[in-house]
Amino acid sequence: MPKPVIVIHGGAGTISRAKLTPETESNLRAALEKALQAGFEILQRRGTSVDAVQRAVQSLEDCPLFNAGRGSVFTHEGIHEMDASVMDGASLRAGAVCGVRSIRNPIACARRVMDRSQHVLLSGSGAEAFAAQQGLPLEPPEYFFTQHRWDQLQEVVETEKVQLDHSLGKIGTVGAVAVDTEGNLAAATSTGGMTNKRFGRVGDSPLIGCGTYATHLCAVSCTGHGEYFIRAAAAHRVAMGVELAGQTVQQAGDSVIHGTVTRLGGDGGLIAVDDKGAWAMPYNTEGMYRGFMTEDECRVMIFES
Amino acid sequence: MPKPVIVIHGGAGTISRAKLTPETESNLRAALEKALQAGFEILQRRGTSVDAVQRAVQSLEDCPLFNAGRGSVFTHEGIHEMDASVMDGASLRAGAVCGVRSIRNPIACARRVMDRSQHVLLSGSGAEAFAAQQGLPLEPPEYFFTQHRWDQLQEVVETEKVQLDHSLGKIGTVGAVAVDTEGNLAAATSTGGMTNKRFGRVGDSPLIGCGTYATHLCAVSCTGHGEYFIRAAAAHRVAMGVELAGQTVQQAGDSVIHGTVTRLGGDGGLIAVDDKGAWAMPYNTEGMYRGFMTEDECRVMIFES
Repeated sequence: MPKPVIVIHGGAGTISRAKLTPETESNLRAALEKALQAGFEILQRRGTSVDAVQRAVQSLEDCPLFNAGRGSVFTHEGIHEMDASVMDGASLRAGAVCGVRSIRNPIACARRVMDRSQHVLLSGSGAEAFAAQQGLPLEPPEYFFTQHRWDQLQEVVETEKVQLDHSLGKIGTVGAVAVDTEGNLAAATSTGGMTNKRFGRVGDSPLIGCGTYATHLCAVSCTGHGEYFIRAAAAHRVAMGVELAGQTVQQAGDSVIHGTVTRLGGDGGLIAVDDKGAWAMPYNTEGMYRGFMTEDECRVMIFES
Repeated sequence: MPKPVIVIHGGAGTISRAKLTPETESNLRAALEKALQAGFEILQRRGTSVDAVQRAVQSLEDCPLFNAGRGSVFTHEGIHEMDASVMDGASLRAGAVCGVRSIRNPIACARRVMDRSQHVLLSGSGAEAFAAQQGLPLEPPEYFFTQHRWDQLQEVVETEKVQLDHSLGKIGTVGAVAVDTEGNLAAATSTGGMTNKRFGRVGDSPLIGCGTYATHLCAVSCTGHGEYFIRAAAAHRVAMGVELAGQTVQQAGDSVIHGTVTRLGGDGGLIAVDDKGAWAMPYNTEGMYRGFMTEDECRVMIFES
């Protein structure tokens, strides 16, 4: 019986050690650990990897510190437009939503799209209508309001600058990958996108093959400057490195982050796990909020540790 | 100097030879030929593959016979929601729009997103605002109205059935791939989606890696039941077959259409061309509207010929 593993991320960027207060760091580490435990608890009682990654991502969506669900950044218009996706590696089934404004847990809606619709990707008000039909909890704009995200928007709203959620306290996209006791793999990603984004911009997080992908051999979730991850089809490129080129997840992940994405000028990171429980967490930024949990160990990292 | 080639498709599906009147067949073949010539003319005077695929797709968008631009199908709400994407293989730059309602040529807007925005994918009213800002031609709903698409909607609007644009006279998604005299590759895809679609459904056509992908080695455009092409990350899977497994475009294309997509239960086809000008047009349906043009030959096919 394969040993279950869950790996998560909470965004990659220029996280300055000097500016990270002990209190913020401690809160972030606690939130990551809580998400790992929530997901791993499902794996431990022989639940599926799909349930585990959804649970872990939902835990991070509910935490206002991360740029997903509750803590999402503001668009140029001062609203929230969130994206999420999930994929089941065994069946290659997938579900995703983009541009949703009121769904409390976008990842839960992505899961419903996978399980209960004929589609893979639903967008905007159509996705909201689907969520309502499915009885998923919706929230008013106040639920998603956080003062520091609002302040971030004020800093850049008059400019044309679209801000990646990179600087301190502006923590990014969240994601999880897992292998369960059956050896089945799953990946999930959720984000509030970029501060001051306009024109209904969609990043890589809701895009199967870009921000999220899973096969019978590996599962991948990405974070970073989404446009580069789309152009690289980053998550699928890792999966194909494993499937077609016989690479390990570490080799394939390194090749995409330090090769393809870096060559394009993009920054970010990814997490990947294979069917034997080996994992990788490459990033080309100063740090990446991340962690893994197995039966033997639960560990959270920001920089090299 | 590489010999330029352009390959196009106008959708794959259950095209019954018996029901295809000589007049419709002749109109379709003429429209495909016109699109090939429009694109190839650019290649011949040493223009870029990106310009050539855009021109060819634009020609098909302007023809009411195809499910893209002017001839787009109706959504459940009786409106049009169109998607398009384009990718430049040399630079891995890409642009796309989804859920646009009034842009005359969605592929032209995808190109502007690639060339003149910081983003890859813009959606809905945001994409419309970007198009307006860019001075692209917008059209009222009447422009996109065609009687046979309206009749198609009436047949299924009361049902929950989302109709793939497969039966006779309901011709699908359009796309083009090309290699230019510099050996650079590009791919473009455009669609009106599925008749009676709901909930802001997005198919594979605007998704980089799924409906469209191009590298320095090959360019790919897909058509068919979009959900399966998303789950397979079909276009990128072909590109990775060539790049990582050393397959020809024929081998990689066959493997995706007759392997991955067929195993998932999906139907459709794709076109692909490599940097040496070799191309493939695999499909697992009764027919696919398609054609290619080189300096020596211009040929349009629906079934085996």
